[in-house]
Amino acid sequence: MRDPRYDILFEPLQIGPVRTKNRFYVVPHATAMGMPALDEMIAFRKARAEGGWGVVCLEETMIHETSDHAPLPDPRMYNDKYIEPLSRVVAAVKEYGALAGIELAHAGASGPAINHREHPLSPTGKFPHYFINPISARTIDRQDITNFRQWYRDAALRARKAGFDIIYVYCAHNLSLLQDFLDTRTNKRTDEYGGVFENRVRLLRETLSDVKDAVGDTCAVAVRFAVEDRRRPSNITALEDGRRVVEALADVPDLWDVNVSDWAWDSGSSRFFEEGQQEPFIDFVKKVTNKPVVGVGRFTSPDAMVSQIKRGVLDLIGAARPSIADPFLPNKIDTGRHDDIRECIGCNACTAEVMTYSRIRCTQNPSAGEEHVNGWHPENVPEAHDPDASILVVGGGPAGLEAAHTLAKRGYQVSIADAGSEWGGRLVRERRMPRLSAWGRVVDYRVSQLQTMPNVNMYLESPLNADDIVGFGADHIIIATGAKWRGEGVGRHHDEPITGHDLPHVLCAEDILNDNVPSGGSVVVYDEDYYYMAAVIADRLAKAGCKVTYVTTASDPSPWTHNTLELVHVINSMNEAGIAIVVGTMITSIDEGSVTASRLLDGAESRIDADTVVLVTGQISDDELYQELVAKRGAGLIRSVDRVGDCLGAGQIAQATYDGRKAGIRFGELTPTG
Amino acid sequence: MRDPRYDILFEPLQIGPVRTKNRFYVVPHATAMGMPALDEMIAFRKARAEGGWGVVCLEETMIHETSDHAPLPDPRMYNDKYIEPLSRVVAAVKEYGALAGIELAHAGASGPAINHREHPLSPTGKFPHYFINPISARTIDRQDITNFRQWYRDAALRARKAGFDIIYVYCAHNLSLLQDFLDTRTNKRTDEYGGVFENRVRLLRETLSDVKDAVGDTCAVAVRFAVEDRRRPSNITALEDGRRVVEALADVPDLWDVNVSDWAWDSGSSRFFEEGQQEPFIDFVKKVTNKPVVGVGRFTSPDAMVSQIKRGVLDLIGAARPSIADPFLPNKIDTGRHDDIRECIGCNACTAEVMTYSRIRCTQNPSAGEEHVNGWHPENVPEAHDPDASILVVGGGPAGLEAAHTLAKRGYQVSIADAGSEWGGRLVRERRMPRLSAWGRVVDYRVSQLQTMPNVNMYLESPLNADDIVGFGADHIIIATGAKWRGEGVGRHHDEPITGHDLPHVLCAEDILNDNVPSGGSVVVYDEDYYYMAAVIADRLAKAGCKVTYVTTASDPSPWTHNTLELVHVINSMNEAGIAIVVGTMITSIDEGSVTASRLLDGAESRIDADTVVLVTGQISDDELYQELVAKRGAGLIRSVDRVGDCLGAGQIAQATYDGRKAGIRFGELTPTG
Repeated sequence: MRDPRYDILFEPLQIGPVRTKNRFYVVPHATAMGMPALDEMIAFRKARAEGGWGVVCLEETMIHETSDHAPLPDPRMYNDKYIEPLSRVVAAVKEYGALAGIELAHAGASGPAINHREHPLSPTGKFPHYFINPISARTIDRQDITNFRQWYRDAALRARKAGFDIIYVYCAHNLSLLQDFLDTRTNKRTDEYGGVFENRVRLLRETLSDVKDAVGDTCAVAVRFAVEDRRRPSNITALEDGRRVVEALADVPDLWDVNVSDWAWDSGSSRFFEEGQQEPFIDFVKKVTNKPVVGVGRFTSPDAMVSQIKRGVLDLIGAARPSIADPFLPNKIDTGRHDDIRECIGCNACTAEVMTYSRIRCTQNPSAGEEHVNGWHPENVPEAHDPDASILVVGGGPAGLEAAHTLAKRGYQVSIADAGSEWGGRLVRERRMPRLSAWGRVVDYRVSQLQTMPNVNMYLESPLNADDIVGFGADHIIIATGAKWRGEGVGRHHDEPITGHDLPHVLCAEDILNDNVPSGGSVVVYDEDYYYMAAVIADRLAKAGCKVTYVTTASDPSPWTHNTLELVHVINSMNEAGIAIVVGTMITSIDEGSVTASRLLDGAESRIDADTVVLVTGQISDDELYQELVAKRGAGLIRSVDRVGDCLGAGQIAQATYDGRKAGIRFGELTPTG
Repeated sequence: MRDPRYDILFEPLQIGPVRTKNRFYVVPHATAMGMPALDEMIAFRKARAEGGWGVVCLEETMIHETSDHAPLPDPRMYNDKYIEPLSRVVAAVKEYGALAGIELAHAGASGPAINHREHPLSPTGKFPHYFINPISARTIDRQDITNFRQWYRDAALRARKAGFDIIYVYCAHNLSLLQDFLDTRTNKRTDEYGGVFENRVRLLRETLSDVKDAVGDTCAVAVRFAVEDRRRPSNITALEDGRRVVEALADVPDLWDVNVSDWAWDSGSSRFFEEGQQEPFIDFVKKVTNKPVVGVGRFTSPDAMVSQIKRGVLDLIGAARPSIADPFLPNKIDTGRHDDIRECIGCNACTAEVMTYSRIRCTQNPSAGEEHVNGWHPENVPEAHDPDASILVVGGGPAGLEAAHTLAKRGYQVSIADAGSEWGGRLVRERRMPRLSAWGRVVDYRVSQLQTMPNVNMYLESPLNADDIVGFGADHIIIATGAKWRGEGVGRHHDEPITGHDLPHVLCAEDILNDNVPSGGSVVVYDEDYYYMAAVIADRLAKAGCKVTYVTTASDPSPWTHNTLELVHVINSMNEAGIAIVVGTMITSIDEGSVTASRLLDGAESRIDADTVVLVTGQISDDELYQELVAKRGAGLIRSVDRVGDCLGAGQIAQATYDGRKAGIRFGELTPTG
């Protein structure tokens, strides 16, 4: 079954005193489950082990209360009472022969320090990173350093007791006290832990050595290390200094898990980063150390993985997002089912959940995070209650395709119809917009799966009205007709249409998606949507030669992209494209040739030239067909009808696939909601 | 013991079928405890009942999953499994003879809709309020309305089973689906639930009637109603329309709990709102209804409370923040201990925790939220392990005063010394700054308490060095020497001093606090602190006749004040004072007469005129004395030393009082940390 070219991915590898069965390695990544959601955590990690990953790691696990990220729910190992619960995660992972790893961490000044009410720690008292809470970190003194080393040792011993095979020391993402020590921006100490390089690396060296002494005889000791900080210049973060750290500690750890910081560059989204983008930064590591090296690159192609190993870049193929999108990726390669791989689209819906303190979710894999909550499995679905039952899905976008696929896998007789000439719904147009092509994988995966299934009929160019649907005679109808962008400017600030919205030079997102693009001149793109669409349209129009001004009521451009780790890249790309950015500003009216804008902070009015105005505000669900069918059901003409995705309420694609999965799973089990 | 003038506050009152023992009423208010922190919730509410409040209510409790605020942990009543846990809250409250209330709520489009992954509901599909997550609410249809009414009835029946006496229908704060129906901004329906007033009020009327039918025979049914939305014009929110609602439903509920919305105006901070500020908006209610009326006003003075009742404004004195700051307020009035009342300072540290999803905290009352976690009681402290043990507290600011007070209550021999001529540390100066006078209550309460205690010695104008302290011979030393504002501009963006910081026209927060205020001319106030200080200084300088430009690297001015519900008021007050606001901008260098500024979004450089520059950036802890004492302890010259508050890491006053309480409670119990 397995293509012999990929055999190398299935070779075992010794990591210190432990041995992994293959080269597929789930690196530590946040899930926002933590101790309060232990069952979710167990089910989530177990699914990855079941899917064939040789190593499955647990995320940042706190070694002390001063590092606790609550209200973000991280795992904890700072008390013996956490051994038993985390041993249950280990047991679930080992059930499938995977090694279990744990990333022991102290967050230094990067924790929110709100819930626990202790002062965060830092080499030299400073404000927290990432959070704006009004507290300065405490400058850690010699007693604190002694304590810190003891916390790490104690936590490592607890982790070993819980059964973990690989125990990390964490020094990455600008989320670690140890990295704060390396960094001259945060370490201004004048004692032997500050100043020259050897002093700044001292605590990392001591900690690694302590942990090895404590557990190194039976556990592999790994270091997670950011070889470069791509945010702005600093000492450790220049490549030369990162290299010095690897050279200085070359064979001290049993495993180097390397990346770049901060998180927005490590987990770079597909809008801004290609597969394998970290290679130029990390490829020196294997030349410096004799120990195994793992790194990430949003790898979903087995060829790319093999290339990494053969070219001596990596020994182990690390994955966070590809393992979230497809927990069974290794098993699918192993069994030659390459076409069944559900490839990560790099949208970072996963990070957005974590950033908002909610358990992880995935656009491609709606079961992610729902393994326990909803009992959803990444591959298996409940059998049809009646395999003769027929379902008609109307609308071939993400929600409709996911519903159809789920129902077809369950064994029902599924028909799916779409009025357009191409599958994908909203994604037909969105995937052609700048930087969004990878999102098309949502469509391609589902369509290619459906096309092989004998119990599925697919109809393009098939607009259906309510009577057609009644005539079709299916046992159950699922409406997935999507939504349309509003043309009158009602959005997050405007409850009423914007004056002038009906002038001929005023477009909305629909027009640009339909390639009704002005050929030049000045354009104002107005964002009351707050996610990606306005920025993407601005990009599209700049590429078309327009002089673009992006205007938003939000205080930051595309503010939701803060959560997808894209905000900084959105801003940089706007600058590169020459797009002017106006924030905190509402368009109050549109005239020919210009808009009147009001700065929210002080009401100051201004005019901005605009040969064309593009409104990217709210959306309206296309739910007329659904409502007509509800009436038909009332009249006894159809048995049941449900609606999913944007036609229920426009949202991110992850919501559409979630809705589709839910409708698919619940059919026959629960009363449909409609 | 009780002053007869206050007898009226202790008269019982019938509320529908139940009767409260007095007029002290803890209105529903968020605590961010919710189901995952049940023990904290029980202990928190119990402390208020113990302190004498006649009614203790639970906050917004969700009637359905589509309303769930998680990751903000709210209580839930949408499943029978929640009856038993919440009955434990009821039992705790009833132990002291209080009535237990519960605010059943559906948040409509105001919930984050992240964790639960269901579409939020609204009268007409719209974006969420409060959150920027990329999802439009689902337009609720007739089936949904039927469901909604059933959810309310079911939740009310569950609440009765749990033992609650007062059951709310929630229509306030712009956080309620029912309010979304009343509001023409959010309700664009064309059916009998939209359009004219009678249609928009229909669902509220039906819901009240449903709940009365379900539980009204044994439970009082209250409505929480915002009579006015002070944010911006709309239909319901104009006073006339709010009045129409009260008139239309006058005697339908058993109790009117009235306020203004949204939360930033209801729980207005003391910087911007006086005690009793809602009276002009709510005083009509008692003229319209025959039912009892409760409202809030940050009331801490029994005279003000009596006046509210005697003048016919309120029947019951509602409190959220005053009951957080002093759970024993009723008992203190009852026993004539008016001087012992710990008055709320109106800083909204409580709301900031809730806004950041962390359990409630309080500046004045560090035991708030810690009743279970730390086992702290609002009034009682553990007895001294050795009443002869002596403690010297060095520094008479919030942390030192709280430590001294806690230790003195425990029975130790306490000395407290301060170098200054007045008690209060940082607050000596801060309370004299514009709008901060109420914060002085932190000092006044503690000093007045300490001054009556025989086991306390207080020394002003007593600078102590390490040798003095050794010579003093106390068994334990607590250092609370505070922090100083930096003069070189190191803050949240600047890791290194700002070029030109040492020019003579460059001041820092210390200078302004010391009344070194320029008498006019142009001033740039530069904020890398992000809480109140820069805005307060800008205000002070505008009042002194300066032409002020406030510049910050943050995307919003004073961004932390978003969490204290002050942001909108900060902005309004800056506009009123003629202060120019420049956000998202870093000062890169200072020259004579101007600063060079760089816009973070695009690096655009500009110059801003400045005869004077005031840097409000980071702070440096004054911990030299502590470090000297650690050395003395090492040399065996003192037994133990601890440090608290800003000298550990500068923070909000709530952190200082927390640190002081912790040091005071833990002495003799745990090894001091130093």
